[in-house]
Amino acid sequence: MRILDLVVTPVAFRDPPLLNASGVHEPLVLRCVLQLVVEGGVVGLGECPGERAHVERLVAAGERIRGMSVFATGAIERAVDEALGGPGGPLRKIDRVAAFSAIEVACLDAQGRLTGLPVSDLLGGAVRDAVPYSAYLFYKWAEHPALDGGAAVGDEWGAALDPAGVVDQARRMIDRYGFRSIKLKGGVFPPDQEIAAIRALREAFPDHPLRIDPNCAWTVETSRYVADELKGVLEYLEDPTAGVEGMAAVSATATMPLATNMCVVSFEEVRPAVERDAVQVVLSDHHYWGGLRRTRELAAVCETLGLGMSMHSNSHLGISLAAMTHVAAATPNLTYACDTHYPWNAADDVVAGGPLRFVDGAVPVPRGPGLGVELDHAVLDRLHGAYIASGRERRDDTGYMRRIEPGYDPALPRW
Amino acid sequence: MRILDLVVTPVAFRDPPLLNASGVHEPLVLRCVLQLVVEGGVVGLGECPGERAHVERLVAAGERIRGMSVFATGAIERAVDEALGGPGGPLRKIDRVAAFSAIEVACLDAQGRLTGLPVSDLLGGAVRDAVPYSAYLFYKWAEHPALDGGAAVGDEWGAALDPAGVVDQARRMIDRYGFRSIKLKGGVFPPDQEIAAIRALREAFPDHPLRIDPNCAWTVETSRYVADELKGVLEYLEDPTAGVEGMAAVSATATMPLATNMCVVSFEEVRPAVERDAVQVVLSDHHYWGGLRRTRELAAVCETLGLGMSMHSNSHLGISLAAMTHVAAATPNLTYACDTHYPWNAADDVVAGGPLRFVDGAVPVPRGPGLGVELDHAVLDRLHGAYIASGRERRDDTGYMRRIEPGYDPALPRW
Ligand SMILES: [Mg+2]
Ligand SMILES: [Mg+2]
Repeated sequence: MRILDLVVTPVAFRDPPLLNASGVHEPLVLRCVLQLVVEGGVVGLGECPGERAHVERLVAAGERIRGMSVFATGAIERAVDEALGGPGGPLRKIDRVAAFSAIEVACLDAQGRLTGLPVSDLLGGAVRDAVPYSAYLFYKWAEHPALDGGAAVGDEWGAALDPAGVVDQARRMIDRYGFRSIKLKGGVFPPDQEIAAIRALREAFPDHPLRIDPNCAWTVETSRYVADELKGVLEYLEDPTAGVEGMAAVSATATMPLATNMCVVSFEEVRPAVERDAVQVVLSDHHYWGGLRRTRELAAVCETLGLGMSMHSNSHLGISLAAMTHVAAATPNLTYACDTHYPWNAADDVVAGGPLRFVDGAVPVPRGPGLGVELDHAVLDRLHGAYIASGRERRDDTGYMRRIEPGYDPALPRW
Repeated sequence: MRILDLVVTPVAFRDPPLLNASGVHEPLVLRCVLQLVVEGGVVGLGECPGERAHVERLVAAGERIRGMSVFATGAIERAVDEALGGPGGPLRKIDRVAAFSAIEVACLDAQGRLTGLPVSDLLGGAVRDAVPYSAYLFYKWAEHPALDGGAAVGDEWGAALDPAGVVDQARRMIDRYGFRSIKLKGGVFPPDQEIAAIRALREAFPDHPLRIDPNCAWTVETSRYVADELKGVLEYLEDPTAGVEGMAAVSATATMPLATNMCVVSFEEVRPAVERDAVQVVLSDHHYWGGLRRTRELAAVCETLGLGMSMHSNSHLGISLAAMTHVAAATPNLTYACDTHYPWNAADDVVAGGPLRFVDGAVPVPRGPGLGVELDHAVLDRLHGAYIASGRERRDDTGYMRRIEPGYDPALPRW
C-alpha cells in the first residue's frame, strides 16, 4: 500500500500558566497533526511538536516519502533522513529523527487500519490492558496575566505556589483521574520550598510513589542536598543537574535512582551515561527517539544495560496519548507510570468523541484498528485557525516570562 | 485470531561428515518443524533444533498458548516461560527462550498470512531486496564411514582435508551459489594448517572477505598467534578462545574484530563482554535470542554499544532460511554476510517447490505472505519417519567421532 500524501496541520491549543525552570507555559501550545493518506483512502494519524521549523521539515519529508510502501518504515526512516540533508546536512540528527518519529506513528496507525489490528499488536501485543500514568503536578499561577490589552485568562485549576497549593492540585487531579503516582515539576522555587512540597505530598499521599523534576536547575551540591533530604521519599529524582558528569556525581551519593529525559535523549548518549553510572532510569519519548518501534528497541537497550524505563511527556493531545499508550502497553519493562500533560490540555483535544478516559489513573489500551482514535475535523480546523492567528513560530517559556518579569534570568543551574 | 493448536514435528535429514572442534556431524541432523494452527485455518510455520528435550518443551509450551491471540507475542513469551517453569524452574533461561523463539516465528508467519504481509514488513520492512550469505566451508571427509554393518555414505562434495581441498570446496560452492564472503569452520587441524588454508583462500579469492571460526579450540596465546599471522587477511576472527576474559585478552592485541556466537548468546551477556571489549561483532541467531523481533532489538543494542552484527547458523532447512532472510532484510545494521549451512542440507528441504534460490550469493527476500514458504507434507512425513527410525534424541558430534576414532578427546582448548 503506497503513501499518497502527508497532510501536515499545525495547531494551537490552550495551556495554563505552568511554571518550570525556564519560565512559564504560554497561553497556547504549538503542536502538529499528521494525516498520512494511503492508497485506498486509509488515513494514518500522527501528532508531534509544532514549532514552525519542525512543521517545514515534515512537509519536506512528506514529499520524499510519496509512493513508498506504508509498511516500509525502515526505508522511510532513511528517506526522511535524506530529505532533511542526512548526516552531512544542516540539521542536527535529533531533529531529523524527530521528523521520522512523527511519520512512523502515522505509518503504524495506517498499517493498523489496513490490517484491522491495534498498533499495540504491531509492536508485539499489549502485555497490560491499561497503561498507568502519573499525576503531573506543576507550580502555577491562577491565570495568564493581562497583556497587550487583553484580559487575564484563568482556568479551573487555580494557583499552586506553595506546598498546600501543590497538595490541593494533587488531590483534585487524583480525585478526577485516579493517578497512583505523582510527579512534581520543580526548579521553580528555592529547593527547600520544593522539598517541603514533596514532604507535604508524602504526608497527604503516603502510598503514592513521588518524583520531582527540576530540569537541571540545581548544582551538583544542591542536587546532593535535595537527594539527601528526600532519602526514602522519592521513587526517582529526575534530571536534578545537567550533563553526564554532573549526574554521575549526584548518582554517586544519591540513594534513589536518577532518571532523565535531558542527559540521555538518543541512542548515542546511552553508553557514555551508563559507563559513568550517571542515570538509572531513562524516560522514553517516541517523539524524539524515532517512533514506536524504536521505543521498543530502547526498552531492549535499557533491559540489556540494567536501566529502568519510564516515559516523558510534553504538552500533547489525544493522538499522542493513544500512541504513548499503545507502545507502553506493549513494552514489558516500562514499569514506571508514564508522564502525561494530558489533564492540562485535554479540553482542546482534536480526537473525536471527547478526551480519552482514565480509569484508576490508567488509560485502557485503545482497541484499534491502528491507534484507535479518529480526528474531529471541526476541532482541527479551529485549532489550526488558532495557530495561524497566533503568528507564533516556536515555544518560548522564557520570553513569555520576561514579558511579565522583565528581569527574569533563565540561566541554570539557578541554585 | 486465536491459536488453536501447535503441531510439533521432529524431523531428521541428511548431513555430510563435516568436521569441527567437537567432532564430526552425524549422518542425520535432528530438527523440528512447527505448524501453528490459528482460527480460520491459517497455519504459521516455524523451524528449530530438534533434540528431544526441546521437542518436549515445545509440546508443553504449545498446550499453554492455545486460545491466545497470535498477535500477542509479548504475552505468549511470558506464557511459554511460565509453561517451562519460569526463572525458578528446572530449565536454563536460554532453553526457555529457545522454545519461545521457535513459536514467535510461527506466530509472525501466521500474522503475515492473516494480514497479507511478508514477515519483513511486520519487522519494519526490508531495507535490502536480497540478503547476502557467506560460503560456509568445512573440513570434511569424503564419506560417512561404514558402521553397524551399513555401507559408507558419500556425497557430492568429496573430501576437504587440506588447503587445496578447502579452496576446491570454496570454488564449487561459489560457482554454484555466488557467495561473496567466505567462512571456514576451523578448530579441526593444528592452527598452522588452518592458517595455510586461509592464505590459500586469500590467494584464490583475493576480493572475498574471509573468516575463520575454531569454536574456542585455541588458547589465548594460540589465538594471538593466529590473529597476528592473519593480520590484514581476516574480516573477523570468530570465537578463537572461550570466555569473556580470554576473548578480551585476544582482542587486546588482535588487529581484526573478534566475532562471537559462543561468548555472548543472550542479552544478559552483552554488557560484561562490552565492558571488557571482548567482542566487536555479535552473531545473532533468532533461534536462541528470542525470535525475530528480539533480533531487531539485539540490532539496536549492537548499534547503541558500537558492536557490529552478523548472523550465526546451525544445520537448517528452508523455513529457517526464510526467517533468517526476512529479519536480516529488515535490519539495517546487519551488514556482514550471514552464515548458513543451507548448501549442505538443502536437498532434503521440507519447503514445497524445492530449495530456496541464491542469486549472487544472496537470498531474495520472499514476498510472503508471512515467511513466503509452504510445507511439502510428503517430505515432512518422510523426514519425520527418518527421525523416528533413527531413535536419536540429540546431536552428538563427539560421540559419533569416538565411534570412528575411539581415542578422540574433545577437550578444549586443543592448541
Ligand atoms: Mg523531565
Ligand atoms: Mg561460530
